[in-house]
Amino acid sequence: MHVLDEVVAKGVRQRRLDVERDGHRVPALLWTPDGDAGPRPVVMLGHGASGSKSQDYIVAVARTLVRHHGLSAVAIDGPVHGDRRAEAGTDGDAAFLDFAARWSADDTLIDTMVADWRATLDAVQALPEVAGGRCGLWGLSMGTIFGLPLAAAEPRVAVAVLGLMGIAGPTKERFAADAPAVRCPVLFLVQWNDELFKRERAFDLFDALGSTDKRMHAHPGRHAEVPAEEFEASAVFLASHLAG
Amino acid sequence: MHVLDEVVAKGVRQRRLDVERDGHRVPALLWTPDGDAGPRPVVMLGHGASGSKSQDYIVAVARTLVRHHGLSAVAIDGPVHGDRRAEAGTDGDAAFLDFAARWSADDTLIDTMVADWRATLDAVQALPEVAGGRCGLWGLSMGTIFGLPLAAAEPRVAVAVLGLMGIAGPTKERFAADAPAVRCPVLFLVQWNDELFKRERAFDLFDALGSTDKRMHAHPGRHAEVPAEEFEASAVFLASHLAG
Repeated sequence: MHVLDEVVAKGVRQRRLDVERDGHRVPALLWTPDGDAGPRPVVMLGHGASGSKSQDYIVAVARTLVRHHGLSAVAIDGPVHGDRRAEAGTDGDAAFLDFAARWSADDTLIDTMVADWRATLDAVQALPEVAGGRCGLWGLSMGTIFGLPLAAAEPRVAVAVLGLMGIAGPTKERFAADAPAVRCPVLFLVQWNDELFKRERAFDLFDALGSTDKRMHAHPGRHAEVPAEEFEASAVFLASHLAG
Repeated sequence: MHVLDEVVAKGVRQRRLDVERDGHRVPALLWTPDGDAGPRPVVMLGHGASGSKSQDYIVAVARTLVRHHGLSAVAIDGPVHGDRRAEAGTDGDAAFLDFAARWSADDTLIDTMVADWRATLDAVQALPEVAGGRCGLWGLSMGTIFGLPLAAAEPRVAVAVLGLMGIAGPTKERFAADAPAVRCPVLFLVQWNDELFKRERAFDLFDALGSTDKRMHAHPGRHAEVPAEEFEASAVFLASHLAG
């Protein structure tokens, strides 16, 4: 693991890391409290297509978890996003289109990303300020495309916020197969008028989750219009299962 | 208004009232803080079929609102329930069957209950310890059968918790007609495996609500299995729009 950069603001230490896995580097951001040595559980934050590990809402959720909920947080760039791109993720539209093409054509896409996430979790949990064992997962839309298989595969995931996704798209069979293997408590978010992934297919995915402790929160509006209320509810939900 | 009885426990004053309207009496319970003279907004609590104004979950919600959320609360018996019955509501199954028969046969049922609620609201808001103007509404299942038309008709209703009901049953046309007239913020609860009112019809009702500020919380389980989490969320939601 290589620390490339570090900034501290309002009690939150943000480190830009590269995690090495099988000869490639996974670009990551890690948020921990400044000057607090005690280990805290970590939440893995998966961004949506066209975004990156450092887009505004990811950083905002991370900082909220650290400042108000007793947790730490880590984000990595999705495939063809952020620092995995030549232009470092400044062109969201290009990343979105490249992702759509890869999602359709690359059978290894999900397993590669799950392996990147697990290597990242191993790396940050080796730090004294990050607790080993139980962790959280938060990922909407593309964050669920990878987060759902990750939650199904990784027993350390003890709580997850998923959503803005259905049993739909090029890997819908994978979602249908993996959903029953998700057993942790889940908060599942739906946008009632989602124009990318129809709510009926999101209902299918919610239904298929193996978790007995699950709830759906749905709001009117389009795919990207998740209200602030659910970012707050996400943080409270994650903390209620991890903190303290 | 006649006060028939009063008990105080753990800071909550519970009064058994009869509200007079057009020659009949509406049996009610009112919960306010003990020894606090300041006026507080009131939440109208509508119980479900087979229950009553004094069933456990109604009393628990009322006490939570008073003790922890700076509100007051009032409940009345539904038609053929509680103190409107000869045996004073001790036979829930009989009340359920009588209600089902009345719901199918009595065209005046909803308007009568809405009028009873509005008279009750007038009566309790005339007390110095209850604030006039904006109030809340909480009612699931039969509590929504009457609460939805009440929220549509009564401009003082500034926030509502509804659910466990759909555009279904003998008065489904009434729900379809009234739902667009509900404009206040709404929390709408759905039980995913509701055996009495199917979730698809609940989705129709959620869709039809005129409120732009609405959210649905859905949980696995049958009609009567609403988890404690949503009772807590209800109280927080009501208080966030009424208290302070």
